Amino acid sequence: MMRTNEAETQIAAAPPLHMIDIIRKKRDGGALDEREIRFVSDGAASGSIPQEQLAAWLMAAWIRGFSLDETRALTLAMRDSGEKFSPARLGKTAVDKHSSGGVGDKTSFLVAPLAAACGVAVPMISGRALGHTGGTLDKLESIPGYRTALSLDEFEAVLRKCGASIVSQTPALVPADRVLYALRDRTGTVENPSLICASILSKKLAAGLDALVLDVKTGSGAFLRDVQQAEFLAALMVATAEMAGTRTVALLTDMGQPLGRAAGNWIELVESIELLRGKRPAESEDLRELSLILAGWMIYLGGQADTPESGYERAETALMNGSGLRVFLGMVEAQGGGVSVFDDAEKFHKPGATEVVNARESGFVTEMDTTALGWAVQRLGAGREKAGEPVDPHAGILFHARRGAQVERGQPLATLYATTPAQLAEPRAILERAINISKAPPDAVALVSRIFTRDSAEKYLQNAIR
Amino acid sequence: MMRTNEAETQIAAAPPLHMIDIIRKKRDGGALDEREIRFVSDGAASGSIPQEQLAAWLMAAWIRGFSLDETRALTLAMRDSGEKFSPARLGKTAVDKHSSGGVGDKTSFLVAPLAAACGVAVPMISGRALGHTGGTLDKLESIPGYRTALSLDEFEAVLRKCGASIVSQTPALVPADRVLYALRDRTGTVENPSLICASILSKKLAAGLDALVLDVKTGSGAFLRDVQQAEFLAALMVATAEMAGTRTVALLTDMGQPLGRAAGNWIELVESIELLRGKRPAESEDLRELSLILAGWMIYLGGQADTPESGYERAETALMNGSGLRVFLGMVEAQGGGVSVFDDAEKFHKPGATEVVNARESGFVTEMDTTALGWAVQRLGAGREKAGEPVDPHAGILFHARRGAQVERGQPLATLYATTPAQLAEPRAILERAINISKAPPDAVALVSRIFTRDSAEKYLQNAIR
Repeated sequence: MMRTNEAETQIAAAPPLHMIDIIRKKRDGGALDEREIRFVSDGAASGSIPQEQLAAWLMAAWIRGFSLDETRALTLAMRDSGEKFSPARLGKTAVDKHSSGGVGDKTSFLVAPLAAACGVAVPMISGRALGHTGGTLDKLESIPGYRTALSLDEFEAVLRKCGASIVSQTPALVPADRVLYALRDRTGTVENPSLICASILSKKLAAGLDALVLDVKTGSGAFLRDVQQAEFLAALMVATAEMAGTRTVALLTDMGQPLGRAAGNWIELVESIELLRGKRPAESEDLRELSLILAGWMIYLGGQADTPESGYERAETALMNGSGLRVFLGMVEAQGGGVSVFDDAEKFHKPGATEVVNARESGFVTEMDTTALGWAVQRLGAGREKAGEPVDPHAGILFHARRGAQVERGQPLATLYATTPAQLAEPRAILERAINISKAPPDAVALVSRIFTRDSAEKYLQNAIR
Repeated sequence: MMRTNEAETQIAAAPPLHMIDIIRKKRDGGALDEREIRFVSDGAASGSIPQEQLAAWLMAAWIRGFSLDETRALTLAMRDSGEKFSPARLGKTAVDKHSSGGVGDKTSFLVAPLAAACGVAVPMISGRALGHTGGTLDKLESIPGYRTALSLDEFEAVLRKCGASIVSQTPALVPADRVLYALRDRTGTVENPSLICASILSKKLAAGLDALVLDVKTGSGAFLRDVQQAEFLAALMVATAEMAGTRTVALLTDMGQPLGRAAGNWIELVESIELLRGKRPAESEDLRELSLILAGWMIYLGGQADTPESGYERAETALMNGSGLRVFLGMVEAQGGGVSVFDDAEKFHKPGATEVVNARESGFVTEMDTTALGWAVQRLGAGREKAGEPVDPHAGILFHARRGAQVERGQPLATLYATTPAQLAEPRAILERAINISKAPPDAVALVSRIFTRDSAEKYLQNAIR
C-alpha cells in the first residue's frame, strides 16, 4: 500500500499529459502552457499523437486562437522538433528573407546574391509553387542541373564558397511542421495568424538565423488580402522572432499587380538576371526597387550597413558593379546548375505554345486581380494542382503593360506561354477578366506601405489585442 | 469543345461536394444544407472521408453549433446510413424508452415488460457501461446464457413471441454513428447537444419506432449536470424526433442519488425482479415510481391508454398481477437465458469480496455525489475503463440508506461487492467522500422535474435560441 501511495505522489508532482485534455482545454478557449504545446508539437513530429486528434486540436486552435505566449511556445517547440542548422561557424552574420507568397515574386534571386555580395551569409530554405503563387525552388529547377535538395553539409559548403545558397527543406528539419502543415491543408485550418507564424518562423529559426527580413504581401494577389490581417501577421511574426532572439523586420508590400513583368519559372530568372546585369527595364522597376529595399534591410540587420538606407545603397552598388551577378552564378554552379544557359537566357526559353493577348479597349490599366492572374499562370503549366506534380519551366506570362499604363485598343497586354496550345484558352479568358482598363488612371499605390520593427510590432499587437 | 461545354454545364447544375469546403463553412459559422450533411454522414459510414477531416469537422461543429434544421438533417442522414429495422409488420405500435445514463438506472427491465404486457411492442436496442454509468446489456449478460447480439430476424422473432426484446446494436445499423461516436470520444467532441441528439435518435429512428419516451437525467449523477443543458437536450431531441415523425416525450428525472437501492449488474436484476413480483421495498420506491411513469407514457403514446395517467395505472396493474414478470422471463428465455437463476436470485449472487460501510456520524443523508458513486461501482469491477473489457456480474453497491434517511453513527450505509478484497479500499474511500451526512434533513427533490412534449419542446427551443 505504501508503494502505491508513493507512486501516486510522484504522479501528482508531474502529471502525465493527455492529448484529449489539451484538445478540450483549447476547445473551451483556455490558454495552453509551454509543456502542453511542446507535447503536441513533439507528438506531431514523432507520430505518437494520431492525425484525428491533431486535426481536432488544429480546428479548436483555429477558432479559439492563440495568445502571443502560446504562439511563441508553438514556434519554439516546432523549431526544436528536429535537426537544426548552425550558421554560426560560417563566421558571418546569417540573414534570410521570407515572402508570404505572390505572383511574379522573384526577389530571392536578387536579394540573396546582393546581400551575400555585401558580406552577410544568406542560408535560404525555400518552398514550391502553391495554389496561385509561384515557388522559388520550381523557378531555380528550370536551370538544367540545379539541385535544391542539398544535405546540411552541402548547404554549408555552398554558403562558405558563395555566401548564399537557396535549397529545399530537408526532411529532418522541423518535422512537426511537415506533419501539421499537411494536416492544415486537408482540414481547413491554414489561414490562422498564429499557425502561419509558427510554421514560417519554426523553419527560419531552425536555420539558426541572426536576422530575418519578412516581406508580407498585401493587395489582390496576397494570401491575406485584408490589410489588417496582413498587418497583424507581420507584427506577430516580428514580435515572436524577436522574442526568440532573431532580429526581425517586416515590410508590408504591394501585391496588387504581379511583381516585375514575368510570372512563371524560367522567364522569372531571365528578368532577374537582366537586373543583376545592371539593366533597368521600366516594366521591372518595382521588382528592382523592392529587391534593393529588402536587401538593404538584410545588409543593415546583418551589421554591414549603419542604416537600411545605406544598406540599400550598398545593394545597388553590388547590382550595378556585377558582384551580385557573380554570387548568383557561383551559387548556381556550386549547386550543380549549368550557367551557360544564362549566356543567351531568352534563347533558352522554348515554350510549347505562345499567344499574345491584346487590349480590347483603350484606356488606363487600373485594377489587376492578381490572384486570378496567378491561377492563369498555374493553368498554363507553370504551377501545380497537387503537391508532387511536375511544372513546365517554360510556361508563364510576360506582362507588357503594368498598372497605371495607358494602352491603345489592340496593343499587346501580355504574352502567354503554355505547354500545349489547348492550355491557352482558359488562362486567356482569366487574364482578360482579371485586367481592368478604365478611362481614368488609377491612384498610385505605395510599394512598401508599412514597416514593423520590434518596437512598432509590440505596440501594434498591444493595441490590436486590446 | 461542345462536349466540354456540356459537361461543364452539368457540373454547374450539381457541383460536386468537397469535404474541405464543408469543413471551412462550418468553421466560419455557416449553416450546412441537407446535401452537405448527408455527404459527411455517408462519407463517415463508407470511410471515404478520412478521420482527420471528420475530426476537424466535428470540432468546428462542436464550437460553432448546429441549428435545428442541421440537427434534424444530421439525425436523418445518420439514420439512413445503414440497415433499418421495420417493426411495422409486427402489427403493434412500437415504442421504446431511452435514458441519458445514470447510476442504478434499471428502469428498462421494468418498463419494457410492463409496456409489452399492456399491448405495445418494445424493440429496445441498448448500450454498455460507459464511464460512471452502468450498461443495460452488461446487466442482462449476468444472466447465464442471455444473448444480446441477435440478428434483426431473431430480434423480430423475440418481439413477436414476447412483445419486448433488449439487444445490442448490430454493426449494420447506423454505421455513421459508430464511426463518429468513436471519433468524438478521441477528439473531445462528445458533449454537444446536436451531436448527442443525432447519435441517440439516429439509432432509435433506424429501429423504426412509432413513439419514444426519453428519460433525461439531471443532478449529480447525470452526464449533463447543468439543468439548462439537460433541458435543452431534452427539448431538442423531442422536436427532432417529432419532425422525423416519431411521437416523442422527454422527462427530466432526478439522478441526484442512485436510482433504487442497487448499482452493479446482477444486483440490479435482483432489485428489478423483486418489483416485478409485486413487492414494494421502501428503498426501491423511486425506481418503482419512475418505471411506472415511464411505462405509462409508453403505453399512452403506443395507443393503449387515453392518458399517461391511465397508462400508469395499466402498468401498475401489470406489475401487481405478474403479467410484466411473465413477459420479462419469457424474453430472457427466448434470448437464451436461464430463468432458474431467478428462483433464488439472491443466492445466485457470489461476489468475490464484501464490505459493509457504516455511517461515521449521526444525521440525515443529504447530498450524494452520484457520479463519484458511479465511479466507485466501476472500480469495484462492475464497469470498465476501456471499451471491450469484461465486467464482473457480481460487483456493485447496495445502498441501505437513501437521500433524506436519518442514520445513526455506525449504522450500515452501503455494502460493497468487489471481485477481489484489494478492490474494496478505493471505492470505500470514494463512497465515504461522496455521501454527505448533515444535521438538517435535505429539501425534497422532485422525481420528475419537467416533461417536454412536441409543443412545449418547440416553445422552449424558440425561447432558448432567441
